[in-house]
Amino acid sequence: MKIALDAMGGDLAPKSTVEGAIEAAKKFPDIHLVLVGNSEEIKNHMKDPIPSNITIHHASDVIKTEDEPVKAVRRKKDSSLVVASQMVKNKEVDAVITAGNTGAFMAAGLLVAGRIPGIERPALAPVIPTTGVNGILVLDVGANMDPKAEHLVQYALMGKIYAEQVLGIDNPRIGLLNVGTEETKGNELMKSTFPLLKEMPINFVGNVEAREVPNGVCDVLVTDGFSGNVLLKLTEGLASSIFAVLKKEFTKSTFTKLASLLLKPSLKNLKKQMDYSEIGGAPLLGVNGAFIKAHGSSDAKAIMNAVRQARLFLVNGVLEKIANAIEQEK
Amino acid sequence: MKIALDAMGGDLAPKSTVEGAIEAAKKFPDIHLVLVGNSEEIKNHMKDPIPSNITIHHASDVIKTEDEPVKAVRRKKDSSLVVASQMVKNKEVDAVITAGNTGAFMAAGLLVAGRIPGIERPALAPVIPTTGVNGILVLDVGANMDPKAEHLVQYALMGKIYAEQVLGIDNPRIGLLNVGTEETKGNELMKSTFPLLKEMPINFVGNVEAREVPNGVCDVLVTDGFSGNVLLKLTEGLASSIFAVLKKEFTKSTFTKLASLLLKPSLKNLKKQMDYSEIGGAPLLGVNGAFIKAHGSSDAKAIMNAVRQARLFLVNGVLEKIANAIEQEK
Repeated sequence: MKIALDAMGGDLAPKSTVEGAIEAAKKFPDIHLVLVGNSEEIKNHMKDPIPSNITIHHASDVIKTEDEPVKAVRRKKDSSLVVASQMVKNKEVDAVITAGNTGAFMAAGLLVAGRIPGIERPALAPVIPTTGVNGILVLDVGANMDPKAEHLVQYALMGKIYAEQVLGIDNPRIGLLNVGTEETKGNELMKSTFPLLKEMPINFVGNVEAREVPNGVCDVLVTDGFSGNVLLKLTEGLASSIFAVLKKEFTKSTFTKLASLLLKPSLKNLKKQMDYSEIGGAPLLGVNGAFIKAHGSSDAKAIMNAVRQARLFLVNGVLEKIANAIEQEK
Repeated sequence: MKIALDAMGGDLAPKSTVEGAIEAAKKFPDIHLVLVGNSEEIKNHMKDPIPSNITIHHASDVIKTEDEPVKAVRRKKDSSLVVASQMVKNKEVDAVITAGNTGAFMAAGLLVAGRIPGIERPALAPVIPTTGVNGILVLDVGANMDPKAEHLVQYALMGKIYAEQVLGIDNPRIGLLNVGTEETKGNELMKSTFPLLKEMPINFVGNVEAREVPNGVCDVLVTDGFSGNVLLKLTEGLASSIFAVLKKEFTKSTFTKLASLLLKPSLKNLKKQMDYSEIGGAPLLGVNGAFIKAHGSSDAKAIMNAVRQARLFLVNGVLEKIANAIEQEK
């Protein structure tokens, strides 16, 4: 198992990527990590002894956060992300992890590595935090803005397999994001998707309203990329806004400051529960390789966790299982 | 100005509707209120002296929360909601307020009262709470699941007029819900709507990501009914989930209970800021009358506030201003 790491992507790269890779290489001796990026910079962050299951693959260019994704992937042929994706295409590695530009990550997966045969559209599938025990795997959150019902059916299959094999959820509850629980509710897309999901060999729990999402009413939530993006970003924005108001309220006076100090552990628990970076990276399901997008602000620990995720993806044969499931659905 | 109140709709009806109507009738002597519903039940909640600007209009039936909206509006011809809407149609009253079934409210507005000439689709437009000074008026949140770009253009015009005339916001900032800020982002609907909004005589602030919504980055947010519904319900669900976790954390021990007691005023401030019922009813913009949907759990104060809202709607000629704006856009 070979996993390529885009050493240059992310707010804390290449330091955090290199440090995370070293940790992961020690922890998982059955994998081989390839750090792709500016070799000099990468070496600067490496201290002796470097684990033998890490190699460096030089790439001269970097795709930046502000770069236009498709254009950057097409033009920056020697960027760390494109080189890593090309290595998947050439079967030199099995996986790519990046903490860089999300749009470029999706474009590189689709345009460079390509799709699993039979998959029409890949889906970006992060786990969004809930107040329940696990979060919810949401697909799609932005790879495909105008999907058809057939695409959502494939999302459900891919989501089921990923939740089982990587998240360790047995027979995951699969829901369809909608405006009401009745079968006849929703827009044309959801109304045509519902009967298709009902016929599938999955644990379909029906329509799920956005109000119920924070309670963790399902394990996998299927939706179009636009609504999924709204769901993801509002969860992120609202949680951080509420914390900001709490902070403002709690620092209003010396009295409230002292009182809130007493509750610090409780507040920390809440924050942890709503924290993205605790939850790991988002796979781009449907492309022909384990493509994992780590959070932009990933530290060494988050990178290590992304490697763990990619490793489970490969060990448990997620790609083959998706290909088989799609074949059977035909 | 005559305002009909569906006395039977809502969790606390008819008690809260009747009490709210009496308060409102005293506060606004320039309006006349018509309580529509079971006259006996209504009278049971009335104490002497009843203000002279209230009359009762008997209706024998009620549309319940669990009723299928369109079917209920078509079949329950003598329900309080349908009778009140018919009074708008017949020009016997200028406005309808209900705290009952939201779907039936939208169906009654559209099917019984009808649209303002030139308006293609009405939009349900609640104010969602933000941590900013005001909330954001979002339209649509569910009246129209598969709108076209032309509909969203009309939402922007109606939202501008309502925000100015009823919410008192001068030259409101109008945003388009989208997955990124660049003009080229989004699904086909948003990509085709953006250039149309740019050409309009409004203060268009461009695309708004869901992440920024809780900060109140605009005053009016235009979107399709499906995404708007996700936005509205997730805001509601996430806020209440976070409060539930806080409550659980803060009552874990005697120690945390005491500490949180000290912060009670701070927590109350936060809760108030995120509370729907503080914000008032949602108008169904585009129908030929002031149609206001109050929250299902409205108490007398909330009903009073909905009357205030309907009164402003009428005093400031929102219907005529919408009709004129649509005429000019042709």
